[in-house]
Amino acid sequence: MIRKIIYTTLVCLLCSPLLSAQQALFSGSREIVSPQVNPDNSVTFRLLAPDAQEVKLYGDFIPSQGWIPKGELMIKDDQGIWSYTTKPLESDLYGYAYTVDGVRVMDPNNVHQIRDVATVTNIVIVGRGQGDLYSVQKVPHGTVTRTWYESPSNKYVQNRRITIYTPPGYENSKKKFPVFYLLHGMGGDEEAWINLGRTAQILDNLIAEGKAEPMIVVMTNGNVVQEAAPGESSLGLYKPTMQLEGTMDGQFESSFKDVIRFMESRYRVVPKSNARAIAGLSMGGYHTLHISRFYPKTFDYIGLFSAAIMPDERVAGNPEYRDIEGTLKQQRDNGYRLYWIGIGKEDFLYQANAEYRQLLDRINMPYVYRESGGGHTWKNWREYLSEFAPLLFK
Amino acid sequence: MIRKIIYTTLVCLLCSPLLSAQQALFSGSREIVSPQVNPDNSVTFRLLAPDAQEVKLYGDFIPSQGWIPKGELMIKDDQGIWSYTTKPLESDLYGYAYTVDGVRVMDPNNVHQIRDVATVTNIVIVGRGQGDLYSVQKVPHGTVTRTWYESPSNKYVQNRRITIYTPPGYENSKKKFPVFYLLHGMGGDEEAWINLGRTAQILDNLIAEGKAEPMIVVMTNGNVVQEAAPGESSLGLYKPTMQLEGTMDGQFESSFKDVIRFMESRYRVVPKSNARAIAGLSMGGYHTLHISRFYPKTFDYIGLFSAAIMPDERVAGNPEYRDIEGTLKQQRDNGYRLYWIGIGKEDFLYQANAEYRQLLDRINMPYVYRESGGGHTWKNWREYLSEFAPLLFK
Repeated sequence: MIRKIIYTTLVCLLCSPLLSAQQALFSGSREIVSPQVNPDNSVTFRLLAPDAQEVKLYGDFIPSQGWIPKGELMIKDDQGIWSYTTKPLESDLYGYAYTVDGVRVMDPNNVHQIRDVATVTNIVIVGRGQGDLYSVQKVPHGTVTRTWYESPSNKYVQNRRITIYTPPGYENSKKKFPVFYLLHGMGGDEEAWINLGRTAQILDNLIAEGKAEPMIVVMTNGNVVQEAAPGESSLGLYKPTMQLEGTMDGQFESSFKDVIRFMESRYRVVPKSNARAIAGLSMGGYHTLHISRFYPKTFDYIGLFSAAIMPDERVAGNPEYRDIEGTLKQQRDNGYRLYWIGIGKEDFLYQANAEYRQLLDRINMPYVYRESGGGHTWKNWREYLSEFAPLLFK
Repeated sequence: MIRKIIYTTLVCLLCSPLLSAQQALFSGSREIVSPQVNPDNSVTFRLLAPDAQEVKLYGDFIPSQGWIPKGELMIKDDQGIWSYTTKPLESDLYGYAYTVDGVRVMDPNNVHQIRDVATVTNIVIVGRGQGDLYSVQKVPHGTVTRTWYESPSNKYVQNRRITIYTPPGYENSKKKFPVFYLLHGMGGDEEAWINLGRTAQILDNLIAEGKAEPMIVVMTNGNVVQEAAPGESSLGLYKPTMQLEGTMDGQFESSFKDVIRFMESRYRVVPKSNARAIAGLSMGGYHTLHISRFYPKTFDYIGLFSAAIMPDERVAGNPEYRDIEGTLKQQRDNGYRLYWIGIGKEDFLYQANAEYRQLLDRINMPYVYRESGGGHTWKNWREYLSEFAPLLFK
């Protein structure tokens, strides 16, 4: 008994990670719960900062003023704990962070964080609704694999990292599965959809509910100059940037055949257009639009999520972008099962998408249109994924 | 051209994640580089905090005073940027964080972070030495898979998450591979070795250099009450704790057969003792000691990294812990190829390991002993892994 107590005390003190002893000193060993989702779906945030002059909470549940995020002032109690309780929130996944006297601070009581380009935010899920779809539930789980494939058509870098979701039961069956290629936006990489997009949770849950067919989901890195996500390549632990060379010049589209070839040689998949879907957000929607044109009779399911549409004039002459209208007509004539376009009313790409729909209308190219609220946000892209996936391979 | 500029400006502003506009305001759009590894292997850390009274840097490169991490005061320049430059550091992977007026702050200019139990720290790698082994290099890369297996022998939870590294070339060969089971310590889970332990980088690099045999590495969750790591289970986004029920009572040991069965049915492996290795750190070293005894003729390679040794008296009567000396003698008589014990001179388990070595000496059970500097730290465990793996399956 004594030995156990001494042992566990020592383990607690010595295994404990950097600063936790310090934190225990700061907090007088009191446990601070943050974030706390309350029964009415309001959320209480807390931060111990006895010496701070001003603590603010930032989160995507707080309406922004134009492009500048608005912070809510938190209130300090007599123990130096600052807190803020939101009004009841819609069920969803939210990101947040604090500022303390102007310095950005992660919630030290919440280890759950996601990187978006060069910024890390804490996350909290409010359940009993859409948020449940983004949560791990007691259902069969798929497998998530990070591996590397060869892309000889890519002129920049040929050995490239890729994230693959296989559905529950894939490994214990001899069945062949359909494949859904899911592409990220500018500043993203092969970690974007699996982390920010909650792809594994959404697919696990939709499949368990019988709402989506079991399918493989392939999350590529659409930055042709990158081997892999920041920190996962031989460039080391560098700071990610939004802009990269060659992201929308046709290279990704023309080298996409290497991804398909890799998937169809390594995995048990149905190598037919009615078992291939492709969708992407923003730049990934642009890639989707052009890849689905550029490879005729390859994809029967196409999804444009808040998509960028037309190539820049400097690259518009590249082979992948020639005769867009003609190849769209060819795509129309070849036939497909679903051409899905989703966009938020406040998205800065709303007008470009409206013009694109006019083009599709003019050439009688059928599509399903989904207009949501909000703008160019992961809230919308998670929703679009959870609406699009159930439409596939039926 | 104009369209491109407008487009990219809009994308930057609107896709940019939470708070980045805010940060741009704070920093006057100036780019702060932090951490910066200098040519002499010193590291400069920087933080913009114009209104702060005191900013400190904490890191595992700063000698601690007993159990309390010591912070180094940072110096503020006339632009509100606080900085600190270390002396030249040994090549290694280091963790760090700041405090600003007593509040723990992550480096907003470094997205590279690792969670250790309930604390997230920034990381930086200093190269040209051991740190190169922990970095992604331009070498063939293995595959990292997070999947779920059934453990019917576990009385708490049967569907369990597991992390598996397969070496470069596994998927393109028909060869069978040896398997190395690698176990975490208290407070860890199936994410510990792959993240904190840099297993994939170490194995990729050792294999590429011809120093280690291509092998599969299996990283289990040794907490029998957990489905999965915090955030990866149906318990939601909760705060991890160091102490869990049933971690060292024999359940993990007696249900370990389910892990072996899973690996040997799902993967192409050599199902022989000379192609099985097992090692673990701290609690995982304890699990290793007892699993390798409890399953006779199963493992020819055994590694105890800063291991806990003897069961608590409350569980010492459990079947997995009966007749330790007798089963060790049996293990000795059955034969094995390597019994490796590593411990730091300042480890709180040093004495327990010394006593265990006396026991092994007394029963003439051969082992290899590696005494390092330092204590109960990931610095040591990464080193032990990089020394142990090359000894396997030769």
